Amino acid sequence: MQHTISFTHNDKQVSVEIPTGALLSDAAHLAGIDIGQPCGGQGRCGRCAVQVTEGNVRRRSTLRLSPDDVEQGYALACQTVIEGNVSIYIPPQEKIERRLTTDRVVAEVTVPEGYEYLQDQTVRRIHLELTPPSMDDQTDDWSRLQTAFRQQHKMEHPFGSAQGGVTCSVSLLREMGEVLREGDWNVTATIETSRRADEQTSRLIQLQPNHIDEYSPLWGTAIDIGTTTVSVWLVDLVSGQVRAQVAEYNGQIARGEDVISRIMYASKNGGGEELRQRVLDTINELIKTACKRVNAKPEEVVKATIAGNSTMIHLLLGIPASNIRLSPFITAVGHPPLMTAREVGLKTHPEASVDCLPGVASYVGADITAGVLSSGLDTAEDVTLFLDVGTNGETVLGNRDWLVTCACSAGPAFEGAGVVNGMRATQGAIEEVWINSETFEPTYRVIGGVKPKGICGSGLISLLSEAFITGIIDKAGNVNLMAISPRVRDGAHGGEYVVAWGAESESGEDIVISRVDVDNLLRAKAAIYAGFTVLADTVGIPLDSVSKVLIGGSFGKYINVEKAVQIGLLPDMDWPRFEFLGNTAVKGAYYALLDWRKRKQITEIAKRMTYIELSADNSFYDAFTSALFLPHTDMSKFPSVAEALSRSN
Amino acid sequence: MQHTISFTHNDKQVSVEIPTGALLSDAAHLAGIDIGQPCGGQGRCGRCAVQVTEGNVRRRSTLRLSPDDVEQGYALACQTVIEGNVSIYIPPQEKIERRLTTDRVVAEVTVPEGYEYLQDQTVRRIHLELTPPSMDDQTDDWSRLQTAFRQQHKMEHPFGSAQGGVTCSVSLLREMGEVLREGDWNVTATIETSRRADEQTSRLIQLQPNHIDEYSPLWGTAIDIGTTTVSVWLVDLVSGQVRAQVAEYNGQIARGEDVISRIMYASKNGGGEELRQRVLDTINELIKTACKRVNAKPEEVVKATIAGNSTMIHLLLGIPASNIRLSPFITAVGHPPLMTAREVGLKTHPEASVDCLPGVASYVGADITAGVLSSGLDTAEDVTLFLDVGTNGETVLGNRDWLVTCACSAGPAFEGAGVVNGMRATQGAIEEVWINSETFEPTYRVIGGVKPKGICGSGLISLLSEAFITGIIDKAGNVNLMAISPRVRDGAHGGEYVVAWGAESESGEDIVISRVDVDNLLRAKAAIYAGFTVLADTVGIPLDSVSKVLIGGSFGKYINVEKAVQIGLLPDMDWPRFEFLGNTAVKGAYYALLDWRKRKQITEIAKRMTYIELSADNSFYDAFTSALFLPHTDMSKFPSVAEALSRSN
Repeated sequence: MQHTISFTHNDKQVSVEIPTGALLSDAAHLAGIDIGQPCGGQGRCGRCAVQVTEGNVRRRSTLRLSPDDVEQGYALACQTVIEGNVSIYIPPQEKIERRLTTDRVVAEVTVPEGYEYLQDQTVRRIHLELTPPSMDDQTDDWSRLQTAFRQQHKMEHPFGSAQGGVTCSVSLLREMGEVLREGDWNVTATIETSRRADEQTSRLIQLQPNHIDEYSPLWGTAIDIGTTTVSVWLVDLVSGQVRAQVAEYNGQIARGEDVISRIMYASKNGGGEELRQRVLDTINELIKTACKRVNAKPEEVVKATIAGNSTMIHLLLGIPASNIRLSPFITAVGHPPLMTAREVGLKTHPEASVDCLPGVASYVGADITAGVLSSGLDTAEDVTLFLDVGTNGETVLGNRDWLVTCACSAGPAFEGAGVVNGMRATQGAIEEVWINSETFEPTYRVIGGVKPKGICGSGLISLLSEAFITGIIDKAGNVNLMAISPRVRDGAHGGEYVVAWGAESESGEDIVISRVDVDNLLRAKAAIYAGFTVLADTVGIPLDSVSKVLIGGSFGKYINVEKAVQIGLLPDMDWPRFEFLGNTAVKGAYYALLDWRKRKQITEIAKRMTYIELSADNSFYDAFTSALFLPHTDMSKFPSVAEALSRSN
Repeated sequence: MQHTISFTHNDKQVSVEIPTGALLSDAAHLAGIDIGQPCGGQGRCGRCAVQVTEGNVRRRSTLRLSPDDVEQGYALACQTVIEGNVSIYIPPQEKIERRLTTDRVVAEVTVPEGYEYLQDQTVRRIHLELTPPSMDDQTDDWSRLQTAFRQQHKMEHPFGSAQGGVTCSVSLLREMGEVLREGDWNVTATIETSRRADEQTSRLIQLQPNHIDEYSPLWGTAIDIGTTTVSVWLVDLVSGQVRAQVAEYNGQIARGEDVISRIMYASKNGGGEELRQRVLDTINELIKTACKRVNAKPEEVVKATIAGNSTMIHLLLGIPASNIRLSPFITAVGHPPLMTAREVGLKTHPEASVDCLPGVASYVGADITAGVLSSGLDTAEDVTLFLDVGTNGETVLGNRDWLVTCACSAGPAFEGAGVVNGMRATQGAIEEVWINSETFEPTYRVIGGVKPKGICGSGLISLLSEAFITGIIDKAGNVNLMAISPRVRDGAHGGEYVVAWGAESESGEDIVISRVDVDNLLRAKAAIYAGFTVLADTVGIPLDSVSKVLIGGSFGKYINVEKAVQIGLLPDMDWPRFEFLGNTAVKGAYYALLDWRKRKQITEIAKRMTYIELSADNSFYDAFTSALFLPHTDMSKFPSVAEALSRSN
């Protein structure tokens, strides 16, 4: 039986027909209304709440709704079953904000020393002068071209030993005849000589009429698909220079904020294809934007090297990721074969080579192997710790002789999710907080210098640390309601501290951090801390003997070390030992894009890394629970914090 | 400006809207009405005549219409420009007949002696038993599979040296996880180890759960795409047996009967894509039919080997063929790369390997190289002549030491086109004729034993020969109007001879052969005769020293040697020297499908063959004009015919 669902959304009305038993979220999807489902439609996050204004529905879950909410007709779209005609009002919600490309995402990057396009690059342009056909020489076009490759290519390039064995697709054969004649038998070929395997095989990517300046830009792109943010660097493969850096939220966010939610969404009927298309849309839009900046066209991009965690790579390629989530946590493919843009769906040159970097395991993906490469960890003389502070919390420990790695699900708290007034690091986010230890009055800095809308990750670390040091919250995360300040109060979710009064904020509502928020943050930081400490224990390396702590992830770049140590996220060490590297994944992809030796090095790194499964024994759980305090149950591990506390009191 | 075109066709009415300046044929196409255009829309054949019953049109050409025709509103759809609303009546025309699969297309074929599936075949099934993953072994699915290939494959197969370097497509990666688990880590892989190049590379074609009987049928198909007929053999690659043979008219015929018309049609906007789709439809339908016969599904076919003339191969692959037609007559590709069914558009297993055999030149294609292989010409000790009697008239002369080849455009006369009562060799075709030399009364045999509809190729040869020997037509092809018989008369196209009176025929109309028909037949036979004689002259081999004449082409199988010699189509030799081989192209494709050494042999044949361009000098033209007589201007070349004539008179 079909029912009519009428939506009121942004002052517009849309109606759709849908059968009994469908979910409200399906109806919204059908109506073209994008309802965010950060938890992947599991009824966990409460972000998809809508108001039923007419008709009846069946609520499968009201976990995130109060009795008052239900009385007012609120229902979670992902948990509400349609059983008749209904009218739905979709309340104005914060839309998924488009991250403006600010200076924040632009890394300082220089071309690797000694980069030699002709020696290091797998893709190159070559000029060919063909003998025109005649009645005495009726060789077919493709053989004529191959003869030219054999005769002219060998002379000029060390890869020439491919013995003219250049392959090409049917699509290229279709346009070859015209290009050869248009260029009057002088053409420019873009070829790729793969160096992933031991044998060299060459493939024709494009054929253009006439001789194009061999040193004019030849475009490639290095991509990092983060669970939250996708970064794209546009690179001139000839000079090696990064000519544009752009980043954007991963369009999959609307279907789940962490990899587990995404995997679950992907395993629903059509979900995988939807997620694939969403991330492709994000990437293709970014490539377009980057190309526009340098006056190039996306079709001129002939090579893409992609980093990303294992789930992101699976979803990009439309490969089921469900076994990543289930014990014993297996990826379908750790090192995808070399593909073309046509196969993958990238809107670059359709024959562009698409190289997905290899990962190590389900939760240690190509973003980490690329990060190890760009951080130099795999060639470090001294024992070094590499942390990717993000939703997945990957950690690598080692040096040029050995590498071990693990992952812990830190969750998205530091990215603003799971925190009432949390938000992403865009305009309006409180990014740093200072609290007066006598008056408990805060000062804060807002991105973009506007009225605050919420608190982003670095702001949360800063706030947590300040509140702890000033005694507003205790070791266990309890809000000290005895503190004499109007800002400390009992709220809907237990004790809370008001960072900004409604009068100052964008929405007119108070911006607070509550007991529940603190718990989420504690769990996130405890997971990361437990991850690297257990890893160090497993290989018998005292944390103190780690000579450097390299911090990757675009988030990691903006952490205040002192405050991160004070909450027990980072180990208590001399600050100079910490190094913030920004997005190490896209940088590693960039190195691999440029130089086939670096590319091979990543494959070696993936092979060398020993993955430690944290869920396999109890030591992680023990370390985690010990770290669920500020900064830690064992204060002796944080002498600098003890000192700060004593100064403060 | 849009106009309404109303068609009346088979008692049905269809209307379409089309702008000023469009052709009637475009409007018919838009209306879904298939108007045959054997000449490719050049206004040459007159087969697309329709009747304008209302409104005005502009006729660009009335070459094939009489003034009466025009008065009655007739117009050639391909030459008529729309300038206003019109109503069109499409007269009932003989539809392109579907050739029923009769015994005629079923060749007697035995599995090549010594065929060893495991040694000769590039495609094979292998069983793999994988160690299931565990927390102690979290290797990804694809690496796990590759390890099994490396460890288990090497032991069993000489191709194992591929070092486990098995490649696979993204599509296969998408289903791999499920297949592995469904089979509980026991799977059957179908892999192809290409032996076209010197290196061996293996590719995964399909992965199936559980262990499938290694010796149960593994399906492949050998295909010959003729300009007129497409033949498909379904082969069990394990036993090597041909399990079904089917043939069908090439669906492209409606857009031109010879390769030149097709090339011209293909170069029109959208024409190439239409022709590609038409031949794909024919092939896919044939594969379906063949599979049904053996209770298999088209998706189970994992390998296809394709022969066909160069134009057919280009059109199949959607590669522009226009340079084949223009001096210096260059193909875009002589030896297409190995492709997949997905790329080509075959509805077999999408990953099935599609191997288009190599050709020599624009007019000596893969049908001829395959024919040379299956005829054994390239290994013959004595000088042998190979004739492919078809529209393109290809000829090969040589032995195991040398091979020369040429092509002459014989035209489709022997296939019933360009002859008023000509038709294809299907039911109702007069296939053999005998004429009483005193009464001039004929006797004839009709395919299927039904009322005659027309005359097919072998019938035309037979009729021409009988009419010549009995004196109804003279050496020059003139009809002897002095012959005392009601069957000899002056017709619309000059003198004609009535083979069947209207009372006997299917249509009720007389079936005749006219002076114009005779001219077309003379030109066809002269071209073929001139072709092989010039070829022999070029290499200085007297025709008489040719030890064998091998005749290929599905047409060639039904020629009566005596009569073919009498009209001067074949050289005057002892009959035992002639051998009729049927469709040598599909047979060659079958050999290549089975055995990679045979496949390599075809590549060698293509390289070894020296192509002689007949249009390059005058000797062909001289030989052609000398052969435009019955049997030839130089009667000394045809002693047996001279004797028959003397007996007859």
